[in-house]
Amino acid sequence: MATLCRPAVAVPEHVITLEETLDLASALHAGHPQLGLALRLIENTGVRTRHLVQPIEQTLTHPGLTVRNQVYEREAKRRVPEVVERALTHAELRARDIDLLIYVSCTGFMMPSMTAWLINTMGFRSDTRQVPIAQLGCAAGGAAVNRAHDFCRAYPGANVLIVACEFCSLCYQPTDLEVGSLLSNGLFGDAVAAVVMRGRGGSGVHIERNGSHLVPDTENWISYGVKDTGFHFQLDKRVPGTMEMLAPALRTLAGQHGWDVSGLGFYIVHAGGPRILDDLCHFLNLSPEKFRYSRATLTERGNIASAVVFDALARLFADGGAPEGTPGLIAGFGPGITAEISLGSWIGAPPEPAHRRLRAISTSDIALVHQGVPRRFPTGTTITD
Amino acid sequence: MATLCRPAVAVPEHVITLEETLDLASALHAGHPQLGLALRLIENTGVRTRHLVQPIEQTLTHPGLTVRNQVYEREAKRRVPEVVERALTHAELRARDIDLLIYVSCTGFMMPSMTAWLINTMGFRSDTRQVPIAQLGCAAGGAAVNRAHDFCRAYPGANVLIVACEFCSLCYQPTDLEVGSLLSNGLFGDAVAAVVMRGRGGSGVHIERNGSHLVPDTENWISYGVKDTGFHFQLDKRVPGTMEMLAPALRTLAGQHGWDVSGLGFYIVHAGGPRILDDLCHFLNLSPEKFRYSRATLTERGNIASAVVFDALARLFADGGAPEGTPGLIAGFGPGITAEISLGSWIGAPPEPAHRRLRAISTSDIALVHQGVPRRFPTGTTITD
Repeated sequence: MATLCRPAVAVPEHVITLEETLDLASALHAGHPQLGLALRLIENTGVRTRHLVQPIEQTLTHPGLTVRNQVYEREAKRRVPEVVERALTHAELRARDIDLLIYVSCTGFMMPSMTAWLINTMGFRSDTRQVPIAQLGCAAGGAAVNRAHDFCRAYPGANVLIVACEFCSLCYQPTDLEVGSLLSNGLFGDAVAAVVMRGRGGSGVHIERNGSHLVPDTENWISYGVKDTGFHFQLDKRVPGTMEMLAPALRTLAGQHGWDVSGLGFYIVHAGGPRILDDLCHFLNLSPEKFRYSRATLTERGNIASAVVFDALARLFADGGAPEGTPGLIAGFGPGITAEISLGSWIGAPPEPAHRRLRAISTSDIALVHQGVPRRFPTGTTITD
Repeated sequence: MATLCRPAVAVPEHVITLEETLDLASALHAGHPQLGLALRLIENTGVRTRHLVQPIEQTLTHPGLTVRNQVYEREAKRRVPEVVERALTHAELRARDIDLLIYVSCTGFMMPSMTAWLINTMGFRSDTRQVPIAQLGCAAGGAAVNRAHDFCRAYPGANVLIVACEFCSLCYQPTDLEVGSLLSNGLFGDAVAAVVMRGRGGSGVHIERNGSHLVPDTENWISYGVKDTGFHFQLDKRVPGTMEMLAPALRTLAGQHGWDVSGLGFYIVHAGGPRILDDLCHFLNLSPEKFRYSRATLTERGNIASAVVFDALARLFADGGAPEGTPGLIAGFGPGITAEISLGSWIGAPPEPAHRRLRAISTSDIALVHQGVPRRFPTGTTITD
């Protein structure tokens, strides 16, 4: 049992609209020979609004990597705790119930990672396992779900907290003038998200299987140039067509699970751009409406990297979830080109009541201790089965 | 079952001795008010030789982060495949038998990570799971073992390849003049390592339990300053005393496993510096000889970050291993301050003969397929139990 509970998502207070983005691009790149193309590409993303951690004037300056990374750290510490608290509340757990903390972020770099700071400041146990991942880009949301699922398979009953923190605006590079860069400047947004995978109990997506797929020889299609000025996002023009290669991987994994990928009840996928969603409709023979949550994330928030899948999943929850047992799919796509896919069924039952969770332990809790997953049992705890 | 097989380790061809290090430090920092202290600290590390990816003259220049990271990528691609091949040979497996690829490295940054390049160029399956970790520093070697163990618990019979690639010399910062920085300049070395954890079969350390421990409120004791000039290693002077806080974590984990941490047969620990080893002897009541493999790594190669535990483990193998069933401990220490600890027993039985591995599958192989771990079965394969 491993159930992905309701995610908590937050977007920053500084909003930029499509119109403002187009005006800015026109003003900043007035003499650019491919300005018209860039503007059309930005308009075609369908992104109406994006949220940024700094006002747009500040976003457009580049104070150097030193300052940029300080801003990243400051904003992460300022914004992550609130979504973590909310995600724990959604899952009816406390920080000390978490056994593994997965932190994914490709838009800033800290060592030690935010995992250490979160453990120190938010009441996580000092034996919480830490998995910080910075190098899977937009695929990291799906990867985090998959590694959480693996962990819950390894230690049945364990709980995992996933945090995705993406401040894409801190990777804006004013000197990058390729059309792909101009498009990216109008596509990416900032957001933080957190979600708990409960090893026992909880309502949401009960994950049953996960898989990964790397499209051969595409490692240069989405990449970072790592330079004195920080991370430079490099986008190959072939990327929007990637779904032709990844749709079969989705189909194969579903088939291995005995499911028809075209007949699932919900699809929570990374909305890197509109073409990804259009092509998935085409290659999986699905109506556009099936991707309404991912589309809404793209429209309202832009491509928020690894946080997209959690934002889209939060919309499914807000929409009332799905009928009990409905099969569905979660997939992150990103550099590699890598797809990180999981399959699961909707479980609508509410989590166990808090008094039972806090006052009683089960025999499987004790088994967990024997497996090396620590548990604290308050005085007066009773053992149930 | 999860057995950590014989590691493959390689060090670069450019060697610098302690004497050369001391001469260089004296020449470069002639007027430094704490030069005497720095020289004594370097001498006290006991590091006799280190290996670097570039000649020392080049190592001492800083051509900027852009170039540094290009050197990282070039050298990683040049040096990692050979240790991967050797690690696979030690484990009697092929690239296509690997289900998870964990790549740990804190001295360069690539996105996509080296995992994508390795999959594309070395014959790994396109559904190999990728876990690249850049933010656990020297603890990442232990963390990689622990996450591999988790994965093998989740998917019994699965195989994991771990790669540790550390070019610490590419983080040399000529403008950092704190005593801690001068010491680090004389302590760290470069190395690459690879090791397979086999889910079934294999000889080496059969991992039975793993755990992590973060020392509260020490997240600033070992850290990177992320600047225009790259990663700046920042070392608090309290770090050498950390074992007083981590030794109890080792003792507790062993105790949970029913073992006495002072009575194990082998200890493979991160040799960050001599004080770590001296203090572990003291706090765990062990003779210095128990840490001879880690000490040899430190003496001959310096602190090679996440690769230390694999280099020390390779020395245990070279020494003939341990009597069947001998209990032992592997531990990485690093930023956080985090300890990543695993407990296991020596298994000396040779791996299954190659013809059986390639020609027969067991019923548990088939179970694995049902669990989502793909397997290719060549024509003529027979089923065993």
